Amino acid sequence: MENSSMPSVPSKELVRRAENVRLAATGLWQSSNQHRCSALNGMAEALTSNFKKIVDANSEDLDRSASEGLAPALMARLKLNEVKLEDAIEGLRKVAQLPDPLGLRQVHRELDKGLVLERKTVPLGVLGVIFEARPDAVIQIASLAIRSGNGAILKGGSEAAHTNQVIINALKDGLSAADVDPNAIDLLTTREESMALLRLDGIVDLIIPRGSNSLVRFIQDNTRIPVLGHADGICHLYIDAAADLRQALDIAIDSKTQYPAACNAIETLLLHKDIASSFLSKAIPLFEEAGVTLLGDDVCQSYGITNAATEQDWSTEYLDLILSVRVVTDMGKALEHIRQYGSRHTEAIVTDNQEVADIFLNAVDSAGVYHNCSTRFADGFRYGFGAEVGISTQTLPPRGPVGLEGLVTYRYHLRGDGHIAANYASGNKIFSHNDLPL
Amino acid sequence: MENSSMPSVPSKELVRRAENVRLAATGLWQSSNQHRCSALNGMAEALTSNFKKIVDANSEDLDRSASEGLAPALMARLKLNEVKLEDAIEGLRKVAQLPDPLGLRQVHRELDKGLVLERKTVPLGVLGVIFEARPDAVIQIASLAIRSGNGAILKGGSEAAHTNQVIINALKDGLSAADVDPNAIDLLTTREESMALLRLDGIVDLIIPRGSNSLVRFIQDNTRIPVLGHADGICHLYIDAAADLRQALDIAIDSKTQYPAACNAIETLLLHKDIASSFLSKAIPLFEEAGVTLLGDDVCQSYGITNAATEQDWSTEYLDLILSVRVVTDMGKALEHIRQYGSRHTEAIVTDNQEVADIFLNAVDSAGVYHNCSTRFADGFRYGFGAEVGISTQTLPPRGPVGLEGLVTYRYHLRGDGHIAANYASGNKIFSHNDLPL
Repeated sequence: MENSSMPSVPSKELVRRAENVRLAATGLWQSSNQHRCSALNGMAEALTSNFKKIVDANSEDLDRSASEGLAPALMARLKLNEVKLEDAIEGLRKVAQLPDPLGLRQVHRELDKGLVLERKTVPLGVLGVIFEARPDAVIQIASLAIRSGNGAILKGGSEAAHTNQVIINALKDGLSAADVDPNAIDLLTTREESMALLRLDGIVDLIIPRGSNSLVRFIQDNTRIPVLGHADGICHLYIDAAADLRQALDIAIDSKTQYPAACNAIETLLLHKDIASSFLSKAIPLFEEAGVTLLGDDVCQSYGITNAATEQDWSTEYLDLILSVRVVTDMGKALEHIRQYGSRHTEAIVTDNQEVADIFLNAVDSAGVYHNCSTRFADGFRYGFGAEVGISTQTLPPRGPVGLEGLVTYRYHLRGDGHIAANYASGNKIFSHNDLPL
Repeated sequence: MENSSMPSVPSKELVRRAENVRLAATGLWQSSNQHRCSALNGMAEALTSNFKKIVDANSEDLDRSASEGLAPALMARLKLNEVKLEDAIEGLRKVAQLPDPLGLRQVHRELDKGLVLERKTVPLGVLGVIFEARPDAVIQIASLAIRSGNGAILKGGSEAAHTNQVIINALKDGLSAADVDPNAIDLLTTREESMALLRLDGIVDLIIPRGSNSLVRFIQDNTRIPVLGHADGICHLYIDAAADLRQALDIAIDSKTQYPAACNAIETLLLHKDIASSFLSKAIPLFEEAGVTLLGDDVCQSYGITNAATEQDWSTEYLDLILSVRVVTDMGKALEHIRQYGSRHTEAIVTDNQEVADIFLNAVDSAGVYHNCSTRFADGFRYGFGAEVGISTQTLPPRGPVGLEGLVTYRYHLRGDGHIAANYASGNKIFSHNDLPL
């Protein structure tokens, strides 16, 4: 997608469809928690009723894609067999059981007698979701959107077009059965529409890309709508001089190898000069055993790493069993390296020196900064959010792993009894600003 | 500014300066609340020491601008006399007294024994502030930035160049005296630099425009950095059939006339058909007395409004003593009108019917939705935030009037004792997700 031209102007037809999603979402905002939960259960039931139809549609997509020579990794993601579909339906029912993210009171303040301010969580409005291959993502995203009272416009990969359409039809049936306007979710099918989706600011409130780094970067570069997600995940692990060697080895191996394709796996290991030699003498055989190729700076090479890391390596997200390693003279240099090459995703330090750990945790400006544990914990489920919408490396909230909280915003309600500002401007009345119980 | 070409690529010199601001901000993050407060007091003292120098510099700017024929309204905003400067210094000392927005714990959760997650508020990093004329804005913004641990790159109007430079020099002296790196604030002087500022994503975390709607819109359209603020403020007041006529009149007059140039003043009045005639018979003379020109639809004209409102009027932010008025057959039509023409800033309903009020408050998707009070309360000071950074009409938080809270984000800290993800993936260990006291 990254070589495409600028997004096209949305057609009148697309704008009309998007406005219908927004209108349906307006109804959803005002629905009760129970209503939204029964909508999710309706969606689960409709998927169950259409189980065979969905699996069959997926077989067709798989056959066509195979004949078109789709890469094996994408074929695997495209495949929605019975087990995966059952899991997706189970996941949908679990989202129904999550606490309601709406209507949470964040501010409750008497501005003056009879003039009360409230701030409550409300849905964002309409989500635009662009994803590659995986048709189970349609089910997951639709469930998170409806749970949080949002409408969703989805655009899946063309290789999954048939599967996605059958799923969306079932989900719409489920919504209708639960008395929710089925327009709350819509599926775009053409590439042109997905480009135009990026131009629907004012109708679409948040874009969620699910796919490769290049897809995310393309979207970030071509829309004014806020994008939830991250392009790069260049995570660092710094082993301090005062690290427990056993912990350092365990955490380094886990952070790199537990699932190297994940954005929260480390790409660079920074070693304090005083521990580098003893650490590497144990780590090199362990990494070798785990199939990891190590690339080192000059000092690392003098300690036994055979491949050289180039300047380019410090900025590379391998997403693979490759790890660049650098020796630093002190923590200041480690912080400098992270500032220069990091992507503000997740970094960790291993040290038994509490003071050094605290400095690191305060100085590193990433969504997650860890002490004596693996970077692989950077995940919404592991954080206890129940669902993960994505991991954001933007500075503004929501930041880091994002649960349903990322799909809501807030609104201020002010209730008075004929209160006017002139009385306060003149000094006739003064504000009390008295906080009330939340 | 709106007719300019695309923002220029930042020069190496500008990038270097911005990186210095970022580096200084990194020090500021890690400073204590007390340290930041003493920095503000140092800034206040340095302004006091340079009082005459600042006023003199402003006189020079005024003389030059007068000879260049600057518009009277801008001349008034440019003027920084002794009273205004004293007020600005007083305001700076007040910001020092606001509660610390940093280090607030929002999440505290044991993921498993010895593995504890915390989410705490931290500064955004570097603010880019672009404003017109008013040199006192430099003082206000610098104080809010330092209070919240952020660096700031400021760009003022060229008409105030001399005043701004003398102020910035004094503020930097104040920072140095309080042992804070004076690079934490920097002043851009050329127009080219201010355009290039919009391209500093990765170094600048938030752009705050202070100026005309067209300035804000230009900035929103020409940067990938999040922008805090709003272009239009097209606020609506809807008078329901069940409104108390006295309250409706008071609130309508206040919402329009208490300060018509403000973004939270109403531009359109929507009247339920059953109350339109009786309301207008009283309102027309009152608005006339207040100097307000009313523009009405056909029905309003039959009730005595003499000027016609055109389609264009519903989308116009007058910021002046002009009000468009429309009669609607029911609240649904009022909601539809607001959806179509509103800017999601602030809307209000006047009604004694609680049920109708609740529907309105839930259905309108604006940052503020009010019942029986003036839209003019949409303001950070009136909400009790102590300071106002701006009013945002973006959907994502921060939304509505924004205090210091808009200048902070959060970061996750995870502290373990050698915890690795593989143990949880294998099922050897399970997460407890046990919330701890905040």
